[in-house]
Amino acid sequence: MEEHEISKAVVKRLPRYYRYLGDLLEAKVERISSNELSDMMNVTASQIRQDLNNFGGFGQQGYGYNVKYLYNEIGKILGLDRTYNMIIIGSGHLGQALANYVKFEKRGFRVIGLFDVNPRLEGVSVRGIEIRMVDELPQFIREHQVQIAALTLPKPGALEVTPVLVENGIRAIWNFAHTDLNVPKDVVVQNVHLSESLMQLSYNLNHIGGKGF
Amino acid sequence: MEEHEISKAVVKRLPRYYRYLGDLLEAKVERISSNELSDMMNVTASQIRQDLNNFGGFGQQGYGYNVKYLYNEIGKILGLDRTYNMIIIGSGHLGQALANYVKFEKRGFRVIGLFDVNPRLEGVSVRGIEIRMVDELPQFIREHQVQIAALTLPKPGALEVTPVLVENGIRAIWNFAHTDLNVPKDVVVQNVHLSESLMQLSYNLNHIGGKGF
Repeated sequence: MEEHEISKAVVKRLPRYYRYLGDLLEAKVERISSNELSDMMNVTASQIRQDLNNFGGFGQQGYGYNVKYLYNEIGKILGLDRTYNMIIIGSGHLGQALANYVKFEKRGFRVIGLFDVNPRLEGVSVRGIEIRMVDELPQFIREHQVQIAALTLPKPGALEVTPVLVENGIRAIWNFAHTDLNVPKDVVVQNVHLSESLMQLSYNLNHIGGKGF
Repeated sequence: MEEHEISKAVVKRLPRYYRYLGDLLEAKVERISSNELSDMMNVTASQIRQDLNNFGGFGQQGYGYNVKYLYNEIGKILGLDRTYNMIIIGSGHLGQALANYVKFEKRGFRVIGLFDVNPRLEGVSVRGIEIRMVDELPQFIREHQVQIAALTLPKPGALEVTPVLVENGIRAIWNFAHTDLNVPKDVVVQNVHLSESLMQLSYNLNHIGGKGF
């Protein structure tokens, strides 16, 4: 498939298509029209056709989409046709939650290392992975093929460890720390700012939902 | 302040303004121009002026923004000038991570209940909060003023518990389960789909960053 620039908004929606198609696949549905998908996903059918047209014509007039084919193609676009080695820096509850999330592994994201700054956690095992100290990071990254680092530690630690990751060749950071990260242009950061998500919820609760309350 | 419709995109950006203003406040900065804020936040100054104009003219020509005033006003808009009682349903690592996150409490989101379906967790305490069984939910919601429910349990449980929450008056759901939720229009759902975030990261790693890899 030819590569071309895809808008951020479409990229954001792709994982949701992937999730719905995965559910359909599990339910042994072989094909689906954009109208049916539209009803399920609560998105207009024309939006769906437009989004999926970005990747060439997966759909056929009068037939709809082949679920398995579309699922696999979107998976490839998302980079899920390969595996990634991921390390988690910050082995508190959130880091351990990520390490225990078996679904990531099923998608090809293998957690191969856990790190922390707290010496009391040194050597503790989570799902068979021993927690290491942060000063072992450079050597660990050099010796293993690490592609992704998840940051589940407080802001000061996240700011301190980011340049170390970048210097040692990490090109993808999944950032849960309550801060933005300054990285070179060839390093990708995906933020999960939980407190900002919670603030959006409270905004919406006060302005859209719960009028009666 | 007069209420008017604010676009979703602006609402999404507000918590980030709030975070930066909070940092400035902590650093005892009293006022800031849109240009300075623009440099810090990596957003154009005109975007900042446009966004903040949504809430009336906080800025003054030649003076810039009063940090404390703007911080407080955005806080009010986000609904952070009041407190919320939150329950967490699903007391695994992720639920416990949320329960342990003291920053939420500082912002006015008080975790007052933890629930699970696993009888082995019954009575276990997290930060002084006893884990209850899910069948106690209706009574608990009736007896306490619960405004927000966080769902940190797997998809089937999340789908099962959602109607129970809605029936008992919950109007805001913070959903971490790997599914969309069907709720009435006056109920607000804020999704945190971790695996979708991870897929965006892998897309970007393959298409934008890490070209050399």
